[in-house]
Amino acid sequence: MSQSEMPTARTRVVREPHRGVYDRETAYRILDEGFVCHVGFVVDGQPYVIPTSYGRSGDSLYIHGSAASRMLRHMREGLPVCITVTLLDGLVLARSVFNHSMNYRSVVVLGKATLVDEPKKKLEALRILSEHIIPGRWADARQPNERELKQTAVLRVPIEEFSAKVRTGPPIDDEEDYSFPTWAGVVPLELKAGEPIGDDRLAAAMEVPQYVISYRRTV
Amino acid sequence: MSQSEMPTARTRVVREPHRGVYDRETAYRILDEGFVCHVGFVVDGQPYVIPTSYGRSGDSLYIHGSAASRMLRHMREGLPVCITVTLLDGLVLARSVFNHSMNYRSVVVLGKATLVDEPKKKLEALRILSEHIIPGRWADARQPNERELKQTAVLRVPIEEFSAKVRTGPPIDDEEDYSFPTWAGVVPLELKAGEPIGDDRLAAAMEVPQYVISYRRTV
Repeated sequence: MSQSEMPTARTRVVREPHRGVYDRETAYRILDEGFVCHVGFVVDGQPYVIPTSYGRSGDSLYIHGSAASRMLRHMREGLPVCITVTLLDGLVLARSVFNHSMNYRSVVVLGKATLVDEPKKKLEALRILSEHIIPGRWADARQPNERELKQTAVLRVPIEEFSAKVRTGPPIDDEEDYSFPTWAGVVPLELKAGEPIGDDRLAAAMEVPQYVISYRRTV
Repeated sequence: MSQSEMPTARTRVVREPHRGVYDRETAYRILDEGFVCHVGFVVDGQPYVIPTSYGRSGDSLYIHGSAASRMLRHMREGLPVCITVTLLDGLVLARSVFNHSMNYRSVVVLGKATLVDEPKKKLEALRILSEHIIPGRWADARQPNERELKQTAVLRVPIEEFSAKVRTGPPIDDEEDYSFPTWAGVVPLELKAGEPIGDDRLAAAMEVPQYVISYRRTV
């Protein structure tokens, strides 16, 4: 699907259409800052929404998990999925209850997941996932062996049908409410990394790597 | 559904069953710390996953939105939904790529949303939502008028069929990997509130309320 065909009827932002964003650059910036998505799939008419980590490379999203999980057992069959990534940036306090809001950036991708089965591609997808979550870690960890690769299922979802939704900035009140005597503004929110906690069984001389010390998601 | 009947086949944690938690107390603690959920619903066989705020009171979750939104247009018809809340607590770096994980707490609620239409109950649900997100704010803001209430749809989802999943603590490596020469441990993650940003049109004398200054989610 070419970009000029976006959005489709399924991905067009219905509510607050001015917040809808359909360019890949914006969507990819959001997808690259996040690393936990919520995957939706349907079993017997019932939707399930499961949080999981993901990685992006080009126009592909990769997710992984145990071949035994409910999600991966059903996705294998090529069921349609929805992958949603949400970054929360703040609470927006307006003068009126009605105009309260949140600052956020979200991306919704609709598609069909396919299994990445070829061993080299599977390993590469796992590397993409790992580097997406914490760049630099892959090369420092003990690499997957054949048994582990067999226990892991990797799925690719093409980023074809998608939309993003973005709200930034201060509250927008009705003009007549600006004189209402209450504080209004934004409480910024950010996912922040704390001090790394070394495992109890680390050798005393083991230094904390730079990619752990300087870990942050905002680019 | 009584608690002793939990989990159902649909909510039993399949992957890593030792991380499954089915008591209401744990689930409610997670639901009360979070305030953004991902709602899954199905239209024409396609799952959609939409982020939205929520509130909890007793055994009910409340979500709201414009009556015009895709989600609320379809939910009104009583379609089955899945509401998932995820709190991210850290990256877990193991010696092996395979044993990398995340610390998190999540709750999945399966149910049917019903419209809260009776004016008093609707207003009370909106108060619950507001107080869930930022306690203390409701009484300080300009209350909803009739026009605003009409534009807002409120849905109740009973917390009957649910499960939680929790991972805490250090990495768990295979015994033979503990000698692998790499750093291992946890990078804690937390959603933190920054300095409140007052709206440009605030009166100079307007003080920042205590519930804004001291805003935090962890209990």
